[in-house]
Amino acid sequence: MSLPALHVAVVGATGMVGREFFRVLEQREFPVASIRALASERSAGSRLVWRGASLLVEALRPDAFAGVDVALFSAGAGVSRAHAPTAVSAGALVVDNSSAWRMAQDVPLVVPEVNPDDIGLHHGIVANPNCCAIPLTMVLEPLRRRAGLERVLVATYQAASGAGWRLVRELEEQTQALAEGRQPQARHYPRVLAGNVVPGGWREGSNGYNEEEVKIVEETRKILHQPELRIAATCVRVPVAVGHSLAVFVETQRALTAEEAIAVLSAAPGVLVREGDDYPTPAEVAGSDKVFVGRVRRDLSSPCGLACWVVADNLRKGAALNAVQIAERAIRMGALTR
Amino acid sequence: MSLPALHVAVVGATGMVGREFFRVLEQREFPVASIRALASERSAGSRLVWRGASLLVEALRPDAFAGVDVALFSAGAGVSRAHAPTAVSAGALVVDNSSAWRMAQDVPLVVPEVNPDDIGLHHGIVANPNCCAIPLTMVLEPLRRRAGLERVLVATYQAASGAGWRLVRELEEQTQALAEGRQPQARHYPRVLAGNVVPGGWREGSNGYNEEEVKIVEETRKILHQPELRIAATCVRVPVAVGHSLAVFVETQRALTAEEAIAVLSAAPGVLVREGDDYPTPAEVAGSDKVFVGRVRRDLSSPCGLACWVVADNLRKGAALNAVQIAERAIRMGALTR
Repeated sequence: MSLPALHVAVVGATGMVGREFFRVLEQREFPVASIRALASERSAGSRLVWRGASLLVEALRPDAFAGVDVALFSAGAGVSRAHAPTAVSAGALVVDNSSAWRMAQDVPLVVPEVNPDDIGLHHGIVANPNCCAIPLTMVLEPLRRRAGLERVLVATYQAASGAGWRLVRELEEQTQALAEGRQPQARHYPRVLAGNVVPGGWREGSNGYNEEEVKIVEETRKILHQPELRIAATCVRVPVAVGHSLAVFVETQRALTAEEAIAVLSAAPGVLVREGDDYPTPAEVAGSDKVFVGRVRRDLSSPCGLACWVVADNLRKGAALNAVQIAERAIRMGALTR
Repeated sequence: MSLPALHVAVVGATGMVGREFFRVLEQREFPVASIRALASERSAGSRLVWRGASLLVEALRPDAFAGVDVALFSAGAGVSRAHAPTAVSAGALVVDNSSAWRMAQDVPLVVPEVNPDDIGLHHGIVANPNCCAIPLTMVLEPLRRRAGLERVLVATYQAASGAGWRLVRELEEQTQALAEGRQPQARHYPRVLAGNVVPGGWREGSNGYNEEEVKIVEETRKILHQPELRIAATCVRVPVAVGHSLAVFVETQRALTAEEAIAVLSAAPGVLVREGDDYPTPAEVAGSDKVFVGRVRRDLSSPCGLACWVVADNLRKGAALNAVQIAERAIRMGALTR
């Protein structure tokens, strides 16, 4: 891209998504004039690598955003609530990966391949959606455009990295125990994850749903501009390091054959369809930027039903990549400032 | 049980389900007068433990069923097709855990808590259902009786033991590799299972579905006596040793609240409901005889929708236990012989 070079800040720089921000910015040759790595007092003083050089991690303080054009936040909802308005006041566009602002009415929630124009409506903050809502809407939007959406049911297979370093390390320790014939122990997560699948570990939501399931429902509706979309989810954590998978059942308003659905999805930006036994798995697609769709077939239990299997890297397209794409799109739209 | 002692044969005695047969028979004090362990030529000569004594594994030959009252088969569909008729001719009741006879019109397919009376219709063979169809129908039947069934969607999280010793060992080796920082290798299964989830590994079925998904659909309809039931499944193998889990979305004909559904399921035989954060996971319920149901809630995407999470030991209730229960029920019904 030949764009004016910008002053960038990454908040939550030492987290799993934070580190991915640096990798994605570098790989995509984002026009960086300067970059600041911001984190908690605890992480301040540590160092990251940026373009081959050492970058000091600084403590996040209110004056950290002076001169910053783009601030990428991924340090939890509390930090975003406390510091994003400061960054906006300092003149930065905030792309926020936390859930803090996603459902706020004047904050656009954007998947660039799905609802890019919403970026233009921002008042300083653009929210980056939940790591399952991003691949889900990437697959639903082309189907919606072609045939309308009636109802969506999702069961997830979510990687440990969705919960950050702590669960990734806990899973590694538990895997070590399993391999050595010891009993794996749960430390921070409510259940042992190695050799297991856990339909929980998220905070309570409402009506028996956890927060993750509520996010998928509400965010999918907002991104697709379909506030009444009938949609439900069951979220499950699986012993995978990186890569979220979704078993999706969709009812469209008009019937599509499997071949038509495959054609529609194959033409969708950022989506890669794998046919037959070439289905995607998370261990194989981790590190990729695409949303992979396999096992596309008619759901024979409904006249307009489709079933498919969706996999994406939750740290990249599910988080850091999508956020950087939002910033790139804002630049191209001339929508960097309010 | 004070029942006449019987002559029992276990076919496929050295397989994972075969060994579970011996444990279940012993634990339930099945009235065994004598027991024969039958297996392939390759396994013949090895030894099992039965009631604290050593039991010789014999090669399965056509004359193996002389004097046998109950033959429990779990050696694959080919062996069942070849040898079950011989066992029936010799006067045995065959309870067959393979898929060979499940959909045959004159062979009952039975979950004792769901359709016990079907046992009386046998002509020598009673089929034991698929390891996912058993827990699924245990949960669907009480809901069907109370409110009728309209549509069922299932996404599975299936343990390696469902595919036998070979995949369990392969998963162990791969887990070892992961723990040692080596790249796990797929040998027999089409993809690496450790650190991954795999929506395949079953033979091709029809219309884009694999055989496992077709079995769940067809067998559920047959067990519930609802041949037109609208039902679809996506089957996924997960890196778990024992214990199949199912994310289930059910639409009933009449609306049930979550509380009503919980009450109905709590009263169902063989079903254990776990509420709130006490959801079941496979690693925790492996070895149990119950079908565990958690996360029962309204599916807000449908006026008559329910969502829940079902877990059962695939080797016990999903296979050996259910088969032994069929035999016990046949004895009590006086339906051991045609």
